[in-house]
Amino acid sequence: MSRVRVSIVGGSGYTGGELARILLFHPQVELTQVASGGHAGQFLHSTHPNLRKLTTLRYCHPDDLTSCDVLFLCLPHGASAGAIERYRGLAPRIIDLSADFRLRSPELYARWYGHEHSVPALLSEAVYGLPELHRAELAEATLVSGTGCSATTAILGLAPLYRAGIVNQQLPLVVEAKFGSSAAGATPGAGSHHPDRSGAVRSFEPTGHRHSAELIQELGLLSHGANLQQTVAFSATAIELVRGILVTAHVFTSERIEEKALWKIYREAYGREPFIRLVKEKTGVYRYPEPKILAGSNFCDIGFEVDADQQRIVVIAALDNLMKGAAGNGVQVLNSMFGWDETVGLSFPGLHPV
Amino acid sequence: MSRVRVSIVGGSGYTGGELARILLFHPQVELTQVASGGHAGQFLHSTHPNLRKLTTLRYCHPDDLTSCDVLFLCLPHGASAGAIERYRGLAPRIIDLSADFRLRSPELYARWYGHEHSVPALLSEAVYGLPELHRAELAEATLVSGTGCSATTAILGLAPLYRAGIVNQQLPLVVEAKFGSSAAGATPGAGSHHPDRSGAVRSFEPTGHRHSAELIQELGLLSHGANLQQTVAFSATAIELVRGILVTAHVFTSERIEEKALWKIYREAYGREPFIRLVKEKTGVYRYPEPKILAGSNFCDIGFEVDADQQRIVVIAALDNLMKGAAGNGVQVLNSMFGWDETVGLSFPGLHPV
Amino acid sequence: MSRVRVSIVGGSGYTGGELARILLFHPQVELTQVASGGHAGQFLHSTHPNLRKLTTLRYCHPDDLTSCDVLFLCLPHGASAGAIERYRGLAPRIIDLSADFRLRSPELYARWYGHEHSVPALLSEAVYGLPELHRAELAEATLVSGTGCSATTAILGLAPLYRAGIVNQQLPLVVEAKFGSSAAGATPGAGSHHPDRSGAVRSFEPTGHRHSAELIQELGLLSHGANLQQTVAFSATAIELVRGILVTAHVFTSERIEEKALWKIYREAYGREPFIRLVKEKTGVYRYPEPKILAGSNFCDIGFEVDADQQRIVVIAALDNLMKGAAGNGVQVLNSMFGWDETVGLSFPGLHPV
Amino acid sequence: MSRVRVSIVGGSGYTGGELARILLFHPQVELTQVASGGHAGQFLHSTHPNLRKLTTLRYCHPDDLTSCDVLFLCLPHGASAGAIERYRGLAPRIIDLSADFRLRSPELYARWYGHEHSVPALLSEAVYGLPELHRAELAEATLVSGTGCSATTAILGLAPLYRAGIVNQQLPLVVEAKFGSSAAGATPGAGSHHPDRSGAVRSFEPTGHRHSAELIQELGLLSHGANLQQTVAFSATAIELVRGILVTAHVFTSERIEEKALWKIYREAYGREPFIRLVKEKTGVYRYPEPKILAGSNFCDIGFEVDADQQRIVVIAALDNLMKGAAGNGVQVLNSMFGWDETVGLSFPGLHPV
Repeated sequence: MSRVRVSIVGGSGYTGGELARILLFHPQVELTQVASGGHAGQFLHSTHPNLRKLTTLRYCHPDDLTSCDVLFLCLPHGASAGAIERYRGLAPRIIDLSADFRLRSPELYARWYGHEHSVPALLSEAVYGLPELHRAELAEATLVSGTGCSATTAILGLAPLYRAGIVNQQLPLVVEAKFGSSAAGATPGAGSHHPDRSGAVRSFEPTGHRHSAELIQELGLLSHGANLQQTVAFSATAIELVRGILVTAHVFTSERIEEKALWKIYREAYGREPFIRLVKEKTGVYRYPEPKILAGSNFCDIGFEVDADQQRIVVIAALDNLMKGAAGNGVQVLNSMFGWDETVGLSFPGLHPV
Repeated sequence: MSRVRVSIVGGSGYTGGELARILLFHPQVELTQVASGGHAGQFLHSTHPNLRKLTTLRYCHPDDLTSCDVLFLCLPHGASAGAIERYRGLAPRIIDLSADFRLRSPELYARWYGHEHSVPALLSEAVYGLPELHRAELAEATLVSGTGCSATTAILGLAPLYRAGIVNQQLPLVVEAKFGSSAAGATPGAGSHHPDRSGAVRSFEPTGHRHSAELIQELGLLSHGANLQQTVAFSATAIELVRGILVTAHVFTSERIEEKALWKIYREAYGREPFIRLVKEKTGVYRYPEPKILAGSNFCDIGFEVDADQQRIVVIAALDNLMKGAAGNGVQVLNSMFGWDETVGLSFPGLHPV
Repeated sequence: MSRVRVSIVGGSGYTGGELARILLFHPQVELTQVASGGHAGQFLHSTHPNLRKLTTLRYCHPDDLTSCDVLFLCLPHGASAGAIERYRGLAPRIIDLSADFRLRSPELYARWYGHEHSVPALLSEAVYGLPELHRAELAEATLVSGTGCSATTAILGLAPLYRAGIVNQQLPLVVEAKFGSSAAGATPGAGSHHPDRSGAVRSFEPTGHRHSAELIQELGLLSHGANLQQTVAFSATAIELVRGILVTAHVFTSERIEEKALWKIYREAYGREPFIRLVKEKTGVYRYPEPKILAGSNFCDIGFEVDADQQRIVVIAALDNLMKGAAGNGVQVLNSMFGWDETVGLSFPGLHPV
Repeated sequence: MSRVRVSIVGGSGYTGGELARILLFHPQVELTQVASGGHAGQFLHSTHPNLRKLTTLRYCHPDDLTSCDVLFLCLPHGASAGAIERYRGLAPRIIDLSADFRLRSPELYARWYGHEHSVPALLSEAVYGLPELHRAELAEATLVSGTGCSATTAILGLAPLYRAGIVNQQLPLVVEAKFGSSAAGATPGAGSHHPDRSGAVRSFEPTGHRHSAELIQELGLLSHGANLQQTVAFSATAIELVRGILVTAHVFTSERIEEKALWKIYREAYGREPFIRLVKEKTGVYRYPEPKILAGSNFCDIGFEVDADQQRIVVIAALDNLMKGAAGNGVQVLNSMFGWDETVGLSFPGLHPV
C-alpha cells in the first residue's frame, strides 16, 4: 500500500521540527515537503540539528508547496486562518497546530483573542483535535485543530471529573500551569535570554491566559449539555525547564468523595487510552506525574489527591508540550483519522534519568 | 558598647550556615559558639565552603554550649521542643527556627502535625517571628519562633487583603507554592539525588501541607477577630531551583475591586517596610516577583494582578527560603528585638543576572 | 525465527534501566529476566518510572536467573569479575558493562585500579566492545566488555588521527572530559545532593582517572604496533547536566596539517559508521558536537578544529553516557554479534530542543 | 572626608549593573552618574531589577556626562578606544573594563584582534588591572584596563608556577575554560535562546580565543624577562551556568615536583592576598575550586593536583566572571588606586547552597 503523503508548512519552528522527526520514522507516511519562508533551500538539520544524518530533505518555499494527502500547519497565530483556503486547496485534510481553529464559538474567540475571527464560518467545521474526547469526529474530519499545550494537560486531567458530574461549579476551578521555555517558541528575545531565563520562576498572564477558553469550551461540553457555570482561574508560571508542562488543578466537589471512587472514575475514563497513564504511587520519588520523564514521549500522565473533608480534589497532570501538547498529538490525530493504530510512530517512552 | 553574644545550635544545616554567614559580618553581634552534634571539632567551612577564609571558628558539641545573650535553634522537627528548657537556661532569649513553636493553639498543632505538642504551655508564650505582623511583641519576647518559608511568602503576600477585609471567605483560598531544593535540607536522599531531582517539577503534599496551619493562624488573626472561615487549599511543587520560593495565590473578593484600590491597600500596608518590595511592572522581563534575583537577599517581593470581572486577585510573592524564609528573617527578628535598624547585616540586595 | 533470549543482571541501576528500555522494543530480542538483588519482586517501573505501562516484568533475584542466550552484566566494579564463572555458566555470550574486563593487560589493570585482577587469565579473552574498532572480533566473542563512557568519547574522537599516524607522541595528549551526573550512578550521596550538585563545575580526579587506561590501550593499538609513547593527561569535570559527555582533546601533530586533510581522515574513518556523525559547521548555534541533543540517541558526534601554526588539533566529541557510552553501545555490540543491522532498536535520534 | 565621585559609562550591561550594585554600597564612593545611550532617562532598576528600592538614580545620556574623579568604561569592544580622549577629559583616572587596553604591544593586539589598534600610543601607558600582579603600578595609574574574565582565572592560577620558574616551556600549556552564559553579555541572540542554551556544553573558539593574548603577555612577563616560549593551547566551552568560570590548566614541569613544594609556592605567592583562596581538600564535596559558591564574591579560588611521574600539574581556578572577572576586580583596582583597603565594598562571601 502506498504511503500517505504528508507535508508541513512552518517547519522551522519547534513544533514543525518535532513533527518532522516523528514523520521521518512513521512507516505509513512519506514526508513529502517541509516549507519555511525563512529557510527555503536549507537542510532541515540547519534548524533541527538532531535530524543530522537522518534526512537530506531541504525546506521548500511555502509558495512551492504541491498537493498532498495531509497538510500540517505549524504557523504563527493568525497565519493559518489568513490563508486557510489556499491550504485547503492543497490537501483534502488539514491539521492546524496553531490556535486559530481551537474554539467553536466566534464569540468565545473574540472575547479571549481580542479581535473577531477572520473566517468564523469555519469554526463550527473544525474538530478540536483531542482523540480522547473527539475520536469519533476525527474519522471524517477535514479540518482538525491542534490543542493548546496547557489546555490539553488540564482538560485531560479534569475531563473525567466533569463527565462524572461530581464538580461543584459554584466554586471556582483553579488551574496553575508550569511551563518550560520551549512553549514560547524558537524566536530569541529578552524573555528567553539565558542569563535571565535560566532559573526563572516567572509569572506570565496570571489572569487572561487564552488557554482558559479551551477549558471553558471543552469542560463545558462535558458538563452534560450545559455550558460551564464556573469561574475558571488559570495562572501560568514559566520555570526552569525546556520541555514539559505540569498542571496543578484545584477543583471542589458537590459531595464528599473518597479516593476509591475517584480511582474508578479515572480508570473507566482512561483504561483503554494508549497515551494516558494514571500515576499515583504511595512510595518512591516519582509518585505523581512529572514532565521530566516524558520528554519525547506522547504520554499524558495524570494523578490526583483528594482532601475529602474539604471536598477538594487536586489533579496533577503532565506532558511534553511539543509531543502530546503539539506535534505528537497531531500525529496521534493523523493515525486516528486514517484508522491506524494510534501509537504508530509514537512509541518512544521517554528517558530516565534525564 | 559590647557586642551581643549569639550562639547557634544545629549549625551544620543550611539555615545554620546562612545564619553564621550573616552573623559573622553583623557589627553588633559576636558569634560565640556554633554547635553541631555531628561535626564537633571541625571548622565551619567543612560544611559551609563559602565561609573559607572568613572564620576559623570550629563547631562545638551541643553539650559544650555555654551561656550567651541570644541562642538560635536550627534543629530538626521536634528537637527544639524536646530540649527547650535546657536551651532557655543557656540564654534569656531564644529564636527557634524550627517548626516547633509556630502555632499558638495546641489543637491546631495536633491537627496538622499528627501528634500532641510536648510542651503545649509554651505555645502561647512564643511569638510568631514575622516582624511585619508582630513587631511590637518582639521587643519583649523571650521565645520567638521562626516562620515556615512558604507560609511567610503567602502570609506576607496576602495579609494586606485580609486586614483590609475585602476577601470573600465563602470561596476558597488557593495557594500554590513552588520550592527550590534547599528547602528540603542538607541531608542527601533518593528525592534529592541530582539525576532525579534535576529538572523535576514534582508535586509533594498536594494536600495536607503543614505550612497551611500557619496561614490559618495568621490570616485568621487578621480577619478582624474571627478565625479564618475559609477553605485553605495549599499545594506544593518542587521545581528546578536551589534557593527560592514563589507563591501564586488565588483569592476572591466580596465585591468588585479595581487595581488602583489594591495598590493603595498594598502601599499602606508595606510602604515603610524595609524588606517588602511591591513588584508589578507593565514592561520588561521582571514584571512580577521572581526568586531568582533574591538569592542571598532578605527581600520579600510582592505583586498582584486583578481580574475584576471574576472578583479574583492573583497574588504573586517571592523570597529566598534561607533568607527571608529562615535565617535572614531570624536576624531581622534579632535586630528588632534589640531595637537596632532591622536591616543591619542584611543589606545584600541579590544579584542580576545569576 | 525465534527471538534471542536476553537477560540482565544488575537491572535497577541507570545502565540496566536503559538497557531494559531498549530491549523491550527490540524486534529480535525477548527480554527474559531482569535481576536485582535489592529490588527482587518489584516491577521494573518501580525504579525506572519511564517504563510504566510498557512492561509488567518484575525483577527476579540474581540467584533465580536461568539460562539464556545473552546475559548483560550491569554490576558495580568488581562484581562481574568476582562471579564471572557463574554467569558464563548461564549464557554462552556475556556482555559485561562494568569496568572489569576492559583492559587486556593485567599490569595495566593493576596500575590503574590499584589491585591485581581477580581472573587475569580472562583479560586476554575479552573483547573491548567498541564496534567501530573491534567489529571483526565481536562476531565470535563470548565475553565482551563494555567501554568507559568518557573513554569511548575520547577514543572515537581521536582514533582516526592515531591510525593516520599524524600524532606527535613527543608532546602530551590532553583530554578534558565534562560529565553529567548520571555517570556517577543511581546511588544518592553527598556529592549528588541536588543543592550541592546543581550548577556545579566540579573537578574530580584531575589526575589518575581510570578511563585513561582505556585510552592508553586503544590508542596504543592504533599506533602501528607500538604502545602509546605519549603522556596522556586526562582531567574530568562534573557539570550541570544529567546525561551526556563532552570531550575536548588537544593533540599535536608531527607536521603541519590543514583542515582539508583532516576532513579526509575523518571521512575515511567514519563514512560508513551508522552511529558516528561528523559535526563541524561554519554557521549556526550547533557548530560542534553537543551532548544536549544526543540524550537517548546512540550517536557519537565528532568535530575538530585545527591550529595549523601550532600544529595542534582540538577534537571535540560528544555522546550520551548511558547510550553510546553504555547501554546503547551494548545493544550495538549485541546486534553486531548476531549479524543484525547495528541500528536495530537504536534509531531514536535525540530531541531538539530539550 | 568627601567621597570620591565615580561615574559609569555603559551602565546597562551586566558589568555596568554589577559595578553599580557594588558602588551604591561603597562607603568611600559617591556614584554620581551612570550613562547609557539606549536607556537614558530610565531608572537603573529597569535593566537591573535587583537594584529596586536601592536607588532612584536614572541613566543619563553619555553626552550628558560631567566631570568626575574616576570614570568606569563598560563599553563594547572598540568603543573605549574610539572615544578615549573624550573620556580622559572627563576624569583624571579611567578604569576601562573592555578589552581595548589590555595588551601592551600593538603587534600582539593586531595579531589577536585582527586589526590595528586605533590609539596604539596609549597601550604602553595603560596598566593591566590585576592588583595581584601590578599593584605598585596602580597607585599612579591614570588609565587602567580591566582583565579578561577567563584570562584572569588562568593567569592567577598559573602565575606562581611561572614566577617560580618551574614550567617546562618546551611542552604546551593547555587551558580549558568553562563559561557561564553571562560572559556573553546582555544582548539576546540565537546562541543565548534558553531552549538552545539551557543544558548546553558548547565549544566555542576551540582555537583562536583572544584571551590567549593576555596569558601570553602576563605569563611572559613572569618568565624572568623572556617572552613566553611556549605553545598556549586555549579552548573554551560554554556550559549550563549563568555566572562563573572554571579553568582547568595542564602545565608540565622541567623537573619532578612534589605536592609539598607546590603548596609552598602557592602560599608564598598568595598568603597575603585578600581575594585568593587556596582550595585543595582531601575530603568533602568541595575539594577543588568551584564557581557555584563564588557568585557575587570577589574571590578567585585556586587549587591544583600534581602527577609527579608525568611532571604534570593540573591547576584548577574559579571565579565569578562579573566580579573578580570584571566589576569586582574593577572596584578592587579602584580601592588599590586610592590606597583604601582592597576589600572595601567587596566583602560578600558568596552563598551556600545556591
